[in-house]
Amino acid sequence: MAVKTVELYFEKPVEDLYVLNITPDVEKSISESGIHDGIATVFIGCTTASIITMRHDDENINSMREILEKFAPSDIDYAHHVTSGDINGVGGDNNGKSHIRSAILGPSVTLPLKDGKLMLDDGQDVVLLDFDIIKRKRKVIVQMIGE
Amino acid sequence: MAVKTVELYFEKPVEDLYVLNITPDVEKSISESGIHDGIATVFIGCTTASIITMRHDDENINSMREILEKFAPSDIDYAHHVTSGDINGVGGDNNGKSHIRSAILGPSVTLPLKDGKLMLDDGQDVVLLDFDIIKRKRKVIVQMIGE
Amino acid sequence: MAVKTVELYFEKPVEDLYVLNITPDVEKSISESGIHDGIATVFIGCTTASIITMRHDDENINSMREILEKFAPSDIDYAHHVTSGDINGVGGDNNGKSHIRSAILGPSVTLPLKDGKLMLDDGQDVVLLDFDIIKRKRKVIVQMIGE
Repeated sequence: MAVKTVELYFEKPVEDLYVLNITPDVEKSISESGIHDGIATVFIGCTTASIITMRHDDENINSMREILEKFAPSDIDYAHHVTSGDINGVGGDNNGKSHIRSAILGPSVTLPLKDGKLMLDDGQDVVLLDFDIIKRKRKVIVQMIGE
Repeated sequence: MAVKTVELYFEKPVEDLYVLNITPDVEKSISESGIHDGIATVFIGCTTASIITMRHDDENINSMREILEKFAPSDIDYAHHVTSGDINGVGGDNNGKSHIRSAILGPSVTLPLKDGKLMLDDGQDVVLLDFDIIKRKRKVIVQMIGE
Repeated sequence: MAVKTVELYFEKPVEDLYVLNITPDVEKSISESGIHDGIATVFIGCTTASIITMRHDDENINSMREILEKFAPSDIDYAHHVTSGDINGVGGDNNGKSHIRSAILGPSVTLPLKDGKLMLDDGQDVVLLDFDIIKRKRKVIVQMIGE
């Protein structure tokens, strides 16, 4: 039984709701780890993005965009905008929705490994949802425990 | 320390939002595994269902149905309906809501084990929420790591 | 490789949506466990609260309160209110929203550990969200697997 920890780095462009399929990167980390059976936790250390599983295609990304917009809209006055650290000279950074979306969708998924592979369905992807509204550099942890 | 992986199979009938209490099946897998202390990840490999914990009773299932319907409604035009693989002869399959609900509720729960038992509260159940709109055969993975 | 399980206890006051930063308690459990590399699952055994990660500050707590109120409102008639166990003499307990919020936000987070520390970002906290509407005593499990 062993623990292996890999750090992956991604760049979020300026665009709102950046959705990146990181399955190939996670699979590469697993295959290089030498762990065949166990679990992989894929985790993002931040409060304005999430790791989830979904079918990563344009249709579902568009629907996700619409549903999240309804659920935690961009255009309401989050308290965070008024009083948080001023990063743009107008009294706060405007990513209140990003914090809420990230808190609700969660920072990680935990996935079973068998025979050196993630037990995902065909068409089920590990996806980084970045809810922030500015450019960000993101670190994702893939941590495997098993044998 | 050992890893044990069990596959469970369930049938989803046609009905919309199928909610199944799988706690007894998960408990049986744990008890047969011989693992007493550690974690169990209960995972579904698909993009139109989720594994969660909730109190599984008619009242809460009805409320879940209503809230999900408000949150990711059945009757809006998901992009997925128009352009995804045509499985019913009219230009797409109509389960856009199922993909979104599954992505947001997540594919798995990770639960602590102690003395060979899940550390659930009385009345806290491991539940398969199936958001799809057609009959499906579902595979659920119970993966345990511990000693 | 070892498994360590710690139980933490918290008191929820009467107030609706109680939000508690439990990061220091979780970090103390980890540091006392002697486990340096592995995973920590932070789990609450109940159906009316959740463990999540978020930036725990007044602004984000207020936004969370507003979004949850929109999403699973306090003032609709949950079936649970009419038919569940009568704890207040008027035909049911009135925490239908609490069950739904807990089911959707989930009972646990699984977090990577490295060099004896949680791999959280600065400003990313482990938070107990208690959705119930009465006083409660809560038990949170911190379970670590690693070496």
